[in-house]
Amino acid sequence: MIRLCGGDTKELKKRLLERGQGDCAAQQKAVDEILAAVKTRGDSALFAYTKRFDGFDVNETTLYVTEEEIQAAYETVDPALIEVVRESARNIEEYHARQKREGFALEKPGIRLSQIIRPLRRVGVYVPGGKASYPSSVLMNIIPAKVAGVEEILMASPADKNGKLPPLTLVAAREAGADKILKIGGAQAVAALAFGTESVPRVDKITGPGNIYVALAKKAVFGQVGIDMVAGPSEVLVIADDTSIPRFIAADFLSQAEHDEMAACILVTPSAAMADAVEAEIWRQAELLSKKETVFQSLENYGTIIVTKDMEEAADVANRIAPEHLELCMDDFEALLPRIQNAGSIFLGQYAPEPLGDYFAGTNHVLPTNGTARFSSPLSVDDFLKKSSTLYYDRDAFYQVYKKVEAFANAEGLTAHARSAAIRFEEET
Amino acid sequence: MIRLCGGDTKELKKRLLERGQGDCAAQQKAVDEILAAVKTRGDSALFAYTKRFDGFDVNETTLYVTEEEIQAAYETVDPALIEVVRESARNIEEYHARQKREGFALEKPGIRLSQIIRPLRRVGVYVPGGKASYPSSVLMNIIPAKVAGVEEILMASPADKNGKLPPLTLVAAREAGADKILKIGGAQAVAALAFGTESVPRVDKITGPGNIYVALAKKAVFGQVGIDMVAGPSEVLVIADDTSIPRFIAADFLSQAEHDEMAACILVTPSAAMADAVEAEIWRQAELLSKKETVFQSLENYGTIIVTKDMEEAADVANRIAPEHLELCMDDFEALLPRIQNAGSIFLGQYAPEPLGDYFAGTNHVLPTNGTARFSSPLSVDDFLKKSSTLYYDRDAFYQVYKKVEAFANAEGLTAHARSAAIRFEEET
Repeated sequence: MIRLCGGDTKELKKRLLERGQGDCAAQQKAVDEILAAVKTRGDSALFAYTKRFDGFDVNETTLYVTEEEIQAAYETVDPALIEVVRESARNIEEYHARQKREGFALEKPGIRLSQIIRPLRRVGVYVPGGKASYPSSVLMNIIPAKVAGVEEILMASPADKNGKLPPLTLVAAREAGADKILKIGGAQAVAALAFGTESVPRVDKITGPGNIYVALAKKAVFGQVGIDMVAGPSEVLVIADDTSIPRFIAADFLSQAEHDEMAACILVTPSAAMADAVEAEIWRQAELLSKKETVFQSLENYGTIIVTKDMEEAADVANRIAPEHLELCMDDFEALLPRIQNAGSIFLGQYAPEPLGDYFAGTNHVLPTNGTARFSSPLSVDDFLKKSSTLYYDRDAFYQVYKKVEAFANAEGLTAHARSAAIRFEEET
Repeated sequence: MIRLCGGDTKELKKRLLERGQGDCAAQQKAVDEILAAVKTRGDSALFAYTKRFDGFDVNETTLYVTEEEIQAAYETVDPALIEVVRESARNIEEYHARQKREGFALEKPGIRLSQIIRPLRRVGVYVPGGKASYPSSVLMNIIPAKVAGVEEILMASPADKNGKLPPLTLVAAREAGADKILKIGGAQAVAALAFGTESVPRVDKITGPGNIYVALAKKAVFGQVGIDMVAGPSEVLVIADDTSIPRFIAADFLSQAEHDEMAACILVTPSAAMADAVEAEIWRQAELLSKKETVFQSLENYGTIIVTKDMEEAADVANRIAPEHLELCMDDFEALLPRIQNAGSIFLGQYAPEPLGDYFAGTNHVLPTNGTARFSSPLSVDDFLKKSSTLYYDRDAFYQVYKKVEAFANAEGLTAHARSAAIRFEEET
């Protein structure tokens, strides 16, 4: 754990930014090959890679999860847990429904401008397999697409060698509203969704987390299809004052640290006593955790406690770090909130720990990482909408202004542009 | 010019997508060097590159355009043209003001979720120099940022060797509301805006068009700062029927073709007679143009006329191409519009040629190119806003649900997450 005094975060920010910026030339080469193969050879390449990497001997029939498999999943999962998934899905739907938007029209005599807002037609949601399979991410990616009105949502997730997906993932997919579930993963799944194959229709956008191969593949196909952000390692920044409860903060810290060795936990407080109390609690509680090794490694790498001059400086530090998750873990968070400019999701008070947002409350847990909250936003319905503008002028309205259009175009040296305006009112020659 | 029959656009789409996908390893290498130099050496590298590439021996004083220079520009430009720029700016502001959005709050007893929407704090707008200097792009990039409420808008544009920028560019910058204008360009300007130097403050997002060096630099700094789209070559698709006026369509075609040799013009019509008439007009009018050579090259490369079975097939072609500009250049465009799914900006009727939107009407002319209208949108106020979510539960509200959060976290094997929920209601141990 690093202990800093004062608000100079330059070195810390540099270290955070460098997380996960290792050399990935080897993976890039593998990904480029896979993308090219699936693009040119379609299903045959997709199936071959799936057999090779997942051990699953897939074909065009076994590619898709069947209704029977979904029903079997519902019979496997604890009914109480299914109820939790349902309630969480309802909360997510309710919050995201508030993000829906309408277009507009701007009318004047003879003139009509508008903005049309439409859902994307077909979207692919990637869901990692194996240990990193998080059914909550299934909800967080699919529900905003569903609320946006996306016509067809394909979920792709690598199966085990027997072609099985985790039952809770299937339940989450059904509750969220996935239209089809494909048993494919890795760069080959991204390629199939981006380019289309005989069995997989091409999508308009791919969202969802994945390992380095998935991330590189998404970056590479961007432009061909839309993608969500390429997520970096996760982080939480907690601001505490004298009303904060060290046990709570320590537990929140550790919940972030269990993700992986790159996860960053930062405590910022003007109270040196609080800093000490939280640190003591962290070491005490860490011993009790099942993922102890990961937790200690993460704390050693990026665990940071910053003692600031005052709350104002604490807010400045948060704004400069622009954390993915920000907890204002104190009684009087209202005084501090207006000072916060940059954060993905903000958790207010003593009883809104990060897992409440990760799993249940309704806000999205796909958040801008690594300082990108300065300019980007949580995953939302907007990510599954696109806009078009329209413009209509009638003859009279255009007659009033065409010489201005002509003048502006000529001023830029674009004479054919000028002519396209002027020809509307020229005699035929 | 290519003539196609029927709606099979596979080959055409492939050719359009391949535009501008040449090898740029040499430029990439140069850009990487420039970015690294400006990142580590700041002003001294920025000034050295500016001298080398623009011939302008800049320093920390001459870097910024002065009030005197702006006033001088106003005295140079034709007052009638200034009036046109003003009217255009007002139209753009009026349209984009309708895009402004409010956040929301979702309240239940003991629970409050919200979405906060805020402007980015500082934005950099890149404006190409030399022949590609388009004052209209200054308006189109800066005004949406201004409407969004961005606190500080820096415009960067390469000056000539005497440190001069085109007067009309300065006028457009002032009318649009640029806060500072920097006489820098190329990858070194992008680097300065992304990383900051002694004289240039770091921005949160960089928008605006540029040459291959600027485009590669923007791609490279993405993540460090936000960027707008990396624009590809431009295209227009015109749908015509028997009511269309060949002279108008031909002129609109040619206005697109004058941009560069990569620009693509596509006519789609179920009327073979209309196709013939437009083509004849195109060749006739092309002879009269000042940028004849570019126009002929562009028509030869990508000029395409597609005769479809009917209007329905014409709309399908448009949706598959997803053009940057779509003109429904006919009397009864209302019947066709609802069939259009994918297009950046849609020009309706006989008197709304593309230049009306490029310069004047108020919609944005920064549009998704090369088929990306399937999933992306015209530049808008949204591009200069970011969202954060907040969540608050009081003790009672969290008590009602914490076991559900715990259960979901445990189901994913994230036991420290589960503990962070449970610890709130455990006795102190």
